[in-house]
Amino acid sequence: MSSFGHFFRVTTAGESHGRSVSCIIENCPPNLALSEADIQPQLDRRRPGQSAITTPRNEKDQVTIHSGTEAGRTLGTPLLLTVPNEDQRPKDYGDQTIDLYPRPSHADWTYLEKYGVKASSGGGRSSARETIARVAAGAVAEKWLRETYGVEIVAFVTSVGDIKLFGDADAMSADPAFLSLADSITRADVDGFLPVRCPHADASRRMEARIAELRDAHDSTGGSVTCVIRHAPSGLGEPCFDKLEAVLAHAMLSIPAVKGFEIGSGFRGAEMNGSRHNDPFVAAPSVPAAAAMLGIPRSRLQTKTNNSGGIQGGISNGMPIFFRLAFKPPATISQDQTTARYDAAGEGVLAAKGRHDPCVVPRAVPIVEGMAALVIADAVMAQHARQMGIHMAKPPGS
Amino acid sequence: MSSFGHFFRVTTAGESHGRSVSCIIENCPPNLALSEADIQPQLDRRRPGQSAITTPRNEKDQVTIHSGTEAGRTLGTPLLLTVPNEDQRPKDYGDQTIDLYPRPSHADWTYLEKYGVKASSGGGRSSARETIARVAAGAVAEKWLRETYGVEIVAFVTSVGDIKLFGDADAMSADPAFLSLADSITRADVDGFLPVRCPHADASRRMEARIAELRDAHDSTGGSVTCVIRHAPSGLGEPCFDKLEAVLAHAMLSIPAVKGFEIGSGFRGAEMNGSRHNDPFVAAPSVPAAAAMLGIPRSRLQTKTNNSGGIQGGISNGMPIFFRLAFKPPATISQDQTTARYDAAGEGVLAAKGRHDPCVVPRAVPIVEGMAALVIADAVMAQHARQMGIHMAKPPGS
Amino acid sequence: MSSFGHFFRVTTAGESHGRSVSCIIENCPPNLALSEADIQPQLDRRRPGQSAITTPRNEKDQVTIHSGTEAGRTLGTPLLLTVPNEDQRPKDYGDQTIDLYPRPSHADWTYLEKYGVKASSGGGRSSARETIARVAAGAVAEKWLRETYGVEIVAFVTSVGDIKLFGDADAMSADPAFLSLADSITRADVDGFLPVRCPHADASRRMEARIAELRDAHDSTGGSVTCVIRHAPSGLGEPCFDKLEAVLAHAMLSIPAVKGFEIGSGFRGAEMNGSRHNDPFVAAPSVPAAAAMLGIPRSRLQTKTNNSGGIQGGISNGMPIFFRLAFKPPATISQDQTTARYDAAGEGVLAAKGRHDPCVVPRAVPIVEGMAALVIADAVMAQHARQMGIHMAKPPGS
Amino acid sequence: MSSFGHFFRVTTAGESHGRSVSCIIENCPPNLALSEADIQPQLDRRRPGQSAITTPRNEKDQVTIHSGTEAGRTLGTPLLLTVPNEDQRPKDYGDQTIDLYPRPSHADWTYLEKYGVKASSGGGRSSARETIARVAAGAVAEKWLRETYGVEIVAFVTSVGDIKLFGDADAMSADPAFLSLADSITRADVDGFLPVRCPHADASRRMEARIAELRDAHDSTGGSVTCVIRHAPSGLGEPCFDKLEAVLAHAMLSIPAVKGFEIGSGFRGAEMNGSRHNDPFVAAPSVPAAAAMLGIPRSRLQTKTNNSGGIQGGISNGMPIFFRLAFKPPATISQDQTTARYDAAGEGVLAAKGRHDPCVVPRAVPIVEGMAALVIADAVMAQHARQMGIHMAKPPGS
Repeated sequence: MSSFGHFFRVTTAGESHGRSVSCIIENCPPNLALSEADIQPQLDRRRPGQSAITTPRNEKDQVTIHSGTEAGRTLGTPLLLTVPNEDQRPKDYGDQTIDLYPRPSHADWTYLEKYGVKASSGGGRSSARETIARVAAGAVAEKWLRETYGVEIVAFVTSVGDIKLFGDADAMSADPAFLSLADSITRADVDGFLPVRCPHADASRRMEARIAELRDAHDSTGGSVTCVIRHAPSGLGEPCFDKLEAVLAHAMLSIPAVKGFEIGSGFRGAEMNGSRHNDPFVAAPSVPAAAAMLGIPRSRLQTKTNNSGGIQGGISNGMPIFFRLAFKPPATISQDQTTARYDAAGEGVLAAKGRHDPCVVPRAVPIVEGMAALVIADAVMAQHARQMGIHMAKPPGS
Repeated sequence: MSSFGHFFRVTTAGESHGRSVSCIIENCPPNLALSEADIQPQLDRRRPGQSAITTPRNEKDQVTIHSGTEAGRTLGTPLLLTVPNEDQRPKDYGDQTIDLYPRPSHADWTYLEKYGVKASSGGGRSSARETIARVAAGAVAEKWLRETYGVEIVAFVTSVGDIKLFGDADAMSADPAFLSLADSITRADVDGFLPVRCPHADASRRMEARIAELRDAHDSTGGSVTCVIRHAPSGLGEPCFDKLEAVLAHAMLSIPAVKGFEIGSGFRGAEMNGSRHNDPFVAAPSVPAAAAMLGIPRSRLQTKTNNSGGIQGGISNGMPIFFRLAFKPPATISQDQTTARYDAAGEGVLAAKGRHDPCVVPRAVPIVEGMAALVIADAVMAQHARQMGIHMAKPPGS
Repeated sequence: MSSFGHFFRVTTAGESHGRSVSCIIENCPPNLALSEADIQPQLDRRRPGQSAITTPRNEKDQVTIHSGTEAGRTLGTPLLLTVPNEDQRPKDYGDQTIDLYPRPSHADWTYLEKYGVKASSGGGRSSARETIARVAAGAVAEKWLRETYGVEIVAFVTSVGDIKLFGDADAMSADPAFLSLADSITRADVDGFLPVRCPHADASRRMEARIAELRDAHDSTGGSVTCVIRHAPSGLGEPCFDKLEAVLAHAMLSIPAVKGFEIGSGFRGAEMNGSRHNDPFVAAPSVPAAAAMLGIPRSRLQTKTNNSGGIQGGISNGMPIFFRLAFKPPATISQDQTTARYDAAGEGVLAAKGRHDPCVVPRAVPIVEGMAALVIADAVMAQHARQMGIHMAKPPGS
Repeated sequence: MSSFGHFFRVTTAGESHGRSVSCIIENCPPNLALSEADIQPQLDRRRPGQSAITTPRNEKDQVTIHSGTEAGRTLGTPLLLTVPNEDQRPKDYGDQTIDLYPRPSHADWTYLEKYGVKASSGGGRSSARETIARVAAGAVAEKWLRETYGVEIVAFVTSVGDIKLFGDADAMSADPAFLSLADSITRADVDGFLPVRCPHADASRRMEARIAELRDAHDSTGGSVTCVIRHAPSGLGEPCFDKLEAVLAHAMLSIPAVKGFEIGSGFRGAEMNGSRHNDPFVAAPSVPAAAAMLGIPRSRLQTKTNNSGGIQGGISNGMPIFFRLAFKPPATISQDQTTARYDAAGEGVLAAKGRHDPCVVPRAVPIVEGMAALVIADAVMAQHARQMGIHMAKPPGS
């Protein structure tokens, strides 16, 4: 479906070559101060043309709020956000070979298999342009979460090709360098390392060089993004199918090019023993009364270690939530490729063309943050529906 | 939520200590031959007590179909499947310290935070017993898929702790040993390597020894499971949010103890260049006419390599779909653990007790298969809703 | 679908001839005192065999809670409620002509058209027995609403055939006799007029006589039921598609045999002028502080008249909500009927048989109440999701 | 929610005073020829300013398709349709008294109760302008239904105040004049009776005079609309909660000002005996082979009478579906009204102002048709999901 979320629900529309990329947000809480200026910064972080290592297309991507606000406040009614496509005409993305051959590892072929219709070159809904709507909607979710609960969501690049910010001999949840970064990193910190958005001077420089080298070699590379969510209330997640990590995984794997997701100890956690992996509880520092007023109580306990990645039994425990995503290398490369024809009548050569990022992870950062915000906002509203804070039982054992 | 799927929709109920673990399946296609005998084998593969390295609790887990069938055929109406809990009384899972301390890395604390109610020891809906309903529902989905499209779903253990069936220096999609296994492995093959279900004699023996050693050391270990889906039709998956890999990730991360998911080239794919990662198309062998009659056409093309893992642009392309899951070590270990009290009034020692698996991956195999079947069945019905096969356009370029 | 509601969500299963009629309730708020004794009374009011004018089948319809509670309190996890069918074998509901002819105005034919499978005689999911699950789930919803907001839901019979409790020359909202009854009537009052449940001695006697007469004439009759919901908080309903009256209409028309729904002034309201129909506002009596604590504020205003039926712009305004339902006469009559064969090869005579109510409205009363409770409970949770009471703006003009 | 439908799903946005009224349609079948010209005619039938008896505001209501089509064909991806609001500034709908008093029987008060935010005068999402999105989406659904199954949907005015096209002494399903009209009436016929759209010369004239009289008296009146759906396939509707009549009722009661819904025999059917009400089956005329190819078979049987209104057991039987709706009189009247202040501090006089229709039913006709089309399209896709036509059993008794 093109909708995400049960309560804070986002429905998107828009091909890369239609008039606009847009979304409707249903059930955004009323009375939130909101204008285009709250949304535009994340769109600017996503847009192409930010540096020499991203695609040279320079799209402005200006968002307009069509409905759902008045006098700078949300009404509780649906928000329509649109971002016009500057040049709507289906473009020539290559020579005519693109009409004869489905591009390898693109969605040309599977969209045709699914819908029985061949859309113009450029990729339609599988285009990265579709992610504009996610970023816009995520910015709204995030503003509400930040103002209501102080939630902070920060993503950053942790690898480009085989150049890695952290080693992967052990789980990220067991790496003191990662944990320290996770506790404090801000978006300003991340954007201090443009264009790559890897918060480490040396790694960032090496990554930038690698991307430039692949661009010149008409090739592309994959990479990874790590995301931290701080100050999410405890109690979020709707087991047994909508565990918080399950919905996060759903959200993240729906981002184009993502091939892997791990949370907390992740794949390396599968190599650990339980006696090391278990996170003992300790008392939490006291919680400000203001936060408790907002309907979801803050946890009295926290954990000493955080191999759980902030989620236990599918429910947030109040600790930082962190996860890592693998992005495959972009399928568009400026090299000739031998592949089969649409009609299966033989093979031939798809000519090189098109202007695309040799590596998507720097621009993926705000997309990951946006999807994370949508997941958390929806989970908060689901927990609100139970009206917790009113019916809360006393702690057992007290 | 406790529901999964939009059309082939499963809703589950049942704590480990209630009367039963159950599910209702809505919209199972009518006229499918179905009896308890179609469901029981997968429940038997999931149930505890299968060997010396699994938990010694011996539950029978007999399924009963309450509704939705008549004369051995589905009616199209909801199926209620129930599996009684043999001993319904809340048990003593430890000494009384379990009433004072939330168990580390269990869901005791987060369930209390979420619902404000402390359920009896044993873990309620976060218990592995909840997965019975998934396995039962999955067996129904799978039968329909197998009879209608010839879909085959096979999962198997690929690692226990740091003992791995395949190395992870490269992506599984680039490993000829894995690809060869993926093309042909059957459940009978997998069960030829009981109790571990790792289809390699030597690796399996070493894994079994490791699990036994940890059991004796009162510890536990994580592991990984890999799953292959063969003969899924092309065209499955509902972008842009319900891409097939996104829904698979959602399904898999909703399984207790799963901390990571990767599809196709996965995390190692993030280290590849695009020129290597792209999967060129080739003509597919011809498709039997019978399959084409069933409403979703088989693809005329296939890919030479399969770094995509059978999914491109969020839509299946007809190639084998494969993914790998990381399972954390079980949190229940027979060691004393120091942790905070429920009331945050201090720390103390949670006494060791309980009988649990030192490693869950052997029994997770049918759970993974079941969830995979639910995802594919729902995706097939969604694609049916468009009534493809009727409105299919002619191939472009022909 | 066999599910109803977004948050307080009920999924039902069970044919008249399977093992049980059951439902799973998702997201019932935790910590609600709940046992079978809270549910059984409404099932007893629904069950057949209550009097000489209802069907002589004597079913016990005992409900069991399988999951979701512990120590008499809800856990917040799914509740499975089951009511066994006492005699599970498909019965002979007539002579063999029932295998040749679809029964007129029954669902035999349309179920076959939809599912392609002919279920045993008796009607499967279209049987009135399916409504057991609605009544059971509704009783749970209602208990929560009553304890949390003091909501009262009372339905009663307002006509049998052309015998009417109130005339229909004018809208019920304009009838002082109705309005007075609506303000105060209780279920005990209604059950003081058994077996018909029409709260007026003379009308009730005449209705009973009419039903008895039709029973003896091997015929049946329709009737109407009116339902009042008192003390529902203001602010319920989710425009623009899930207006409260729209969801009530959905719920009510999903009850077997319902052919019409009108709310507030209803069909007669269509004959009024606006100057008469408009409901002026007046100040409301002051609201107890306790109610305000429960998360949805009580309205400071009420209306002088109530042609709106308690809902304006699709949202409850705090006034009593009332609506009326038309039930068609039962299709099962003990007369021979000439009709076409299943195979369309000719007409013939379907022999009279079966034991059924000559009029369903007395037993429909708890079904209507149950569905009303499900609608209101779900609407309350949806409004809770916005966490109103916290973000409430100051009244404009103040 | 602001979404309607499970598969053919429409999400709307837009207040009367925002930039646009818009909708996103998800899962519209691909390869449907579609342009603005397919949608505009129904918008033109809905728009104000069509005659002296409708509101003199002259809005152009031009629709634009932003996405989801290419080269005049649907792609299967989401369609965004927008209709700009010509004058976006919140207008003065009266003197300042509108800021002090919630308008009687408007949504001013309940929106404030629900969202805690007072939107500008004019009514926001409760405005009739919101229905533009329904009409636009309905026109798309309808085109698909007409081309695929030959479905015809025609609504018309059957009463204005107490002036009625048909008497209501008996059910419409028992009125030969209605049944004859229902079998053949077209939209061209209906529009032959502009401005009232009541297909009877004398009744239409009297209705027009009544509306003009009320307009001059600064008052308003209610009325009724009847809708016929011909050639809907049999097998539509998803019991037990999403029976076709239940979803139709939901759709219709979500239209502003609707207070009642009856289908088939409706409220008068509640006065009938079963022996008269039952609809005997007869063989249907043979069905064109082309229709059978389209995935849902046409019924071999039809009914002699049609008190069922084309739906039995919640499932369409292939006969014409017909229902009637009651619309209340518009709440906006150009008379002073005494009512309470927002702050409940006393009563006063809300001054008369604003330009509105004295009767909404003529313009409601395309809205009713649109919502009917959305219901049927979604039901067809749901039935497609079962892939009927492939698994159809042989007729029993053959």
